[in-house]
Amino acid sequence: MLVRAFVPAHITAFFVPVFHDDPLKAGSLGAGINLDKGTNVFASIETGTLERHIHVAFNGEPVKREEAVISYSVAEKIVPKDFMGEVEIWQYFDFPSGYGFGNSAGGALGTALALSYAFGGTWLKAAQIAHEAEVVNKGGLGDVVAQLAGGMEVRVKAGGPGCGVVDNLFFEDYKVLVVPLGRLSTKEILDGEVVKVIEVEGRKSLEKLLKDPTPERLMALARAFAERTGLLTGELLELAGELDRVLKSPSSMIMLGKGLFALVREKELESAKALLADLNVPYDVAEIHEGKPKVGRWFGEGYR
Amino acid sequence: MLVRAFVPAHITAFFVPVFHDDPLKAGSLGAGINLDKGTNVFASIETGTLERHIHVAFNGEPVKREEAVISYSVAEKIVPKDFMGEVEIWQYFDFPSGYGFGNSAGGALGTALALSYAFGGTWLKAAQIAHEAEVVNKGGLGDVVAQLAGGMEVRVKAGGPGCGVVDNLFFEDYKVLVVPLGRLSTKEILDGEVVKVIEVEGRKSLEKLLKDPTPERLMALARAFAERTGLLTGELLELAGELDRVLKSPSSMIMLGKGLFALVREKELESAKALLADLNVPYDVAEIHEGKPKVGRWFGEGYR
Repeated sequence: MLVRAFVPAHITAFFVPVFHDDPLKAGSLGAGINLDKGTNVFASIETGTLERHIHVAFNGEPVKREEAVISYSVAEKIVPKDFMGEVEIWQYFDFPSGYGFGNSAGGALGTALALSYAFGGTWLKAAQIAHEAEVVNKGGLGDVVAQLAGGMEVRVKAGGPGCGVVDNLFFEDYKVLVVPLGRLSTKEILDGEVVKVIEVEGRKSLEKLLKDPTPERLMALARAFAERTGLLTGELLELAGELDRVLKSPSSMIMLGKGLFALVREKELESAKALLADLNVPYDVAEIHEGKPKVGRWFGEGYR
Repeated sequence: MLVRAFVPAHITAFFVPVFHDDPLKAGSLGAGINLDKGTNVFASIETGTLERHIHVAFNGEPVKREEAVISYSVAEKIVPKDFMGEVEIWQYFDFPSGYGFGNSAGGALGTALALSYAFGGTWLKAAQIAHEAEVVNKGGLGDVVAQLAGGMEVRVKAGGPGCGVVDNLFFEDYKVLVVPLGRLSTKEILDGEVVKVIEVEGRKSLEKLLKDPTPERLMALARAFAERTGLLTGELLELAGELDRVLKSPSSMIMLGKGLFALVREKELESAKALLADLNVPYDVAEIHEGKPKVGRWFGEGYR
């Protein structure tokens, strides 16, 4: 049996980390955008061996348990203890890991959904297992609930699935331009002094967004947050300024990665692309993924 | 400006009403199925008049305020007090009202989403306004949150949007066969003695479903609930028995309408249709609507 799950890449625009001893009450406040590119998880389940085996691969390459702690912990919880067979979990990422696209949560949630589909379970329980694995292993705090909500999401009450509350903005006709330039360590930033400024600025941004809940306001608040927290500086800030010259809404920084994102109208797309090509900067364009992740039996011609 | 919202028809399989003075805490526990047919709401907004006008029409026929209390109350909350112009809300229902397809909530939620899209607002706030109008005016308790969740939903914590918690089952390849035969008054049943049995049986059904969360179990529990509460009797029960002869999963009663529903595999569809045609009974077949309602600007060639 082969099951496929698609989980959107999730870009955080601004956030407030909310820590709690109970992983289901830990999470984040904030806002972000889900893309129609992201993480595809293919779970292959075959019976007929004498042992219970679970294997995880990233982009076609098998990875060891210590390199995929979150995915293995999700799988161990869902695959029944007495299952005799091979479970292979193939995760494919459209964006590089560590760049702020929520790959970790995408892998966790995709694995949880695909395996729950195969072995029994529900959406909520699968999502809770993914969220807990993310929180406990410091993969992230808010990506799983954000990816479940889809679209342009606003986390108005922190917490995991069934506990936190996620709202959605109405929007139309936007594509998302992303400029992925490198990694940032979420752990390092959340352990540093900047987290205090993030908490203050994040709460302010959320309050302001809920008073004027539009995509344009989201981007303006994201940019202000990125600059005021001191996370967006130097060359990245300069590049954001360049992009702003050809776009109506400000671009902002991917939280947390060395990269930028922007909402782009169809008619703005060509000039933005031309600018980035001129500057010799890598970029990608995605649609916004509305609604839930996808999961279902897979009858495709292989692992694409 | 013309905005369209689609809200799925929602069939309740079993339920426990949960009353509360705070409408957002009122709701229901239970399970049900969302269909790809349901309620389409077209909101036409035109400025340039000297007064603020709101009009509602059901299936092309204008209706008076007292005949559309829920929709008018939703619209009055969302259309700004100082708006000068015409707001026309055209609601089209794929199933007859009062038959248990959640038309009331579909109209309320569709109106709230379309008007919030046009006038500003968020998904959560729109949904809360629709839920409150439903609860206060006794349109229903759980349809709005169920329609927001889509798919095969399980209400595990009662309450309105942002307060209640809705889970989803995994399923594959089912269509939904519906046999709509007539109306039942939700109000009368909820005010009667049967509500005590409903509460006991509904809770038991929910508990059992969460232990074995599959579509087949949902249908078996729905049928047991319908019979044990004494709601499914007489000719309707006989018809359910007839249907069971050609289907693998039991059919059950639409809560609350004089009608039946069943999960049908592609290969079972023809024999079910033939049986119902033989019995000269009206029926319809729908797909399951997964995910959220739809809302967006409408550029169609008129009101379909």
